[in-house]
Amino acid sequence: MKFGIVFFPTVGPDDRPAPQYFDECLQLVDLAESLGYDHAKIVEHYFFRYGGYSPDPVTFLAAAAGRTSRIRLGTSATIPAFQHPVKLAGKLAMLDNISHGRLDAAFGRGFLPDEFSAFGIPMDESKSRFVENVEAIKRLWSEENVVWEGQYHQFGPVTLLPRPVQQPHPPVFVTTARSAESCAEAARAGHGLQTVPNVMSTEQLQERLGIYRAEWAGSGRAAGTERIHFSYPCVVAPEGEEARRMGRFDDERNTAAISAAVAAWATTTSSAYPGYEQFANIGASRFDEKLAAQKLMIGSPDQVRGQIEQIAEWFGDDVTISLGIHSGHLSVEDAATTLRLLAEEVIPKLSVNLL
Amino acid sequence: MKFGIVFFPTVGPDDRPAPQYFDECLQLVDLAESLGYDHAKIVEHYFFRYGGYSPDPVTFLAAAAGRTSRIRLGTSATIPAFQHPVKLAGKLAMLDNISHGRLDAAFGRGFLPDEFSAFGIPMDESKSRFVENVEAIKRLWSEENVVWEGQYHQFGPVTLLPRPVQQPHPPVFVTTARSAESCAEAARAGHGLQTVPNVMSTEQLQERLGIYRAEWAGSGRAAGTERIHFSYPCVVAPEGEEARRMGRFDDERNTAAISAAVAAWATTTSSAYPGYEQFANIGASRFDEKLAAQKLMIGSPDQVRGQIEQIAEWFGDDVTISLGIHSGHLSVEDAATTLRLLAEEVIPKLSVNLL
Repeated sequence: MKFGIVFFPTVGPDDRPAPQYFDECLQLVDLAESLGYDHAKIVEHYFFRYGGYSPDPVTFLAAAAGRTSRIRLGTSATIPAFQHPVKLAGKLAMLDNISHGRLDAAFGRGFLPDEFSAFGIPMDESKSRFVENVEAIKRLWSEENVVWEGQYHQFGPVTLLPRPVQQPHPPVFVTTARSAESCAEAARAGHGLQTVPNVMSTEQLQERLGIYRAEWAGSGRAAGTERIHFSYPCVVAPEGEEARRMGRFDDERNTAAISAAVAAWATTTSSAYPGYEQFANIGASRFDEKLAAQKLMIGSPDQVRGQIEQIAEWFGDDVTISLGIHSGHLSVEDAATTLRLLAEEVIPKLSVNLL
Repeated sequence: MKFGIVFFPTVGPDDRPAPQYFDECLQLVDLAESLGYDHAKIVEHYFFRYGGYSPDPVTFLAAAAGRTSRIRLGTSATIPAFQHPVKLAGKLAMLDNISHGRLDAAFGRGFLPDEFSAFGIPMDESKSRFVENVEAIKRLWSEENVVWEGQYHQFGPVTLLPRPVQQPHPPVFVTTARSAESCAEAARAGHGLQTVPNVMSTEQLQERLGIYRAEWAGSGRAAGTERIHFSYPCVVAPEGEEARRMGRFDDERNTAAISAAVAAWATTTSSAYPGYEQFANIGASRFDEKLAAQKLMIGSPDQVRGQIEQIAEWFGDDVTISLGIHSGHLSVEDAATTLRLLAEEVIPKLSVNLL
């Protein structure tokens, strides 16, 4: 297993001013690098507390790149439908160069009606735009004199500058696991998988991972080279009760944030998002239920060690864990404590392979 | 007067690898901050040696923001036609927050046919898209619940996050000075002016600045609050002859780079770019001619001091100078020498007001 951090802010100006939030996140990236964590990631969202502080993950990651030297930097994810592939390929290539090859590029379709509406992109096109843009970006990264004749974009011959450091291109992940077919497609394309286990049951996720791993091997790729990243909200404190008190507080606010962001699903339907109408009714946080189902990593060092070992047993000990340590509702000191306790009292004692 | 630096790379992978170039530029930003310079800027261009290492200025500026605390950070410029205003407003707002209010936002129309072609934007629309997108970005920065019903974009009501630190919005500059009318428009809109004196004669530039200043005052704004930024390639060395040898070498390569980038004007005409067809024939560097006309700042400390005093006499001592010190053809040590000599032996001896 490998461990990193992911920032998913769910605060607005009245909760935590953005300059303070970014300062704290950059301090936590520095700390994560010094403690040996694998990566730092950040999301892309707009307008709402739900991720809205980060409309451009590359901007934050570049700030982190300029002051670190080892930790990998990842989008989690970026949404190709919202910008031209030449633009997105170019800025990601700049980040790969500024960071000397530390970029992990995860792409997502997006799922919030208000975001698609603002960008003037029909949600029904989200899948086809995602597929086209990711493919165009990979071509721009790995080939010269690229001619692209797609459904949404046509250009070329052009040679993107700067060329990415990582060859043939930075690792590509897709944020998808809802459908078995999307997992199979990701494996066939050689893409890593990035998902939030909270969006489905353990059994459903196991089934999809099985399909992904089987397709990966079936595509002629060596078993064990697939890349699977899971994100979990995480609070570790010396005493489990204190961690749960903070974790519950955080989860209630995260739940309120996503509820506000998905409200538009009450009046939206899209053929590309079957069943998402139900999303409008997220309801209360169900903290205890999620904690019992190992959807949140919350507790004392020993409790969280048990959770991680359970996850390794369910999903394999080759998965990488991204810890959501600072949505902005707890203090940066609490987030730093989580990072330190994990690095010093949890990870070294794990009965799993560490990568 | 105030002084800063601007990066306009004209190198490709065969000249100077991009990771090395960015490392050197970030070191120069650190040095500029420590020496008291006002700002660091970087351009936006694509595909060619001519600026192509920097398809997204915000990405580089964010890397600089993450490791500095005082120096201002500017686009020079960014091209609104190539991205959605929500995206560009959002990433610039992130940069303004990460840097604690150090963003100078300069916008340009762009002028390279190959860039417009790749983005699928007709050049004839460049002016109308520029005007619409800059206005939309200013609205997104300064108002909540923005409804935008433009010719090219429609969205809202949306409230951009994060809110910019600088209120009502970061300083806006337009990169324009070719036409007297665009200078007048910039003044009426309250925008700063950013230009490269090399694109016109001293008399033409004086005339346009006169119009800009008159319209600024005529719009009810206080005289002296207008913001005028000029960019000059710059090499300072202890001996003038050595500086000129390096400056000539650099200028020849910069000229070759722009010649390749504008080649498409040989087969392009656009109503929005009258006369640009001639651009296809840039020819040789005319280094001596440009140096004599004070279009390049090249020489010993005393020689460059004389040049700056001449510029202050021509254009006013309230202008800000952005020095192009590292296009990538000279060593980073040479660029650092330029910065140090200017800060220590030129600027303190100037017979002009320092801001």
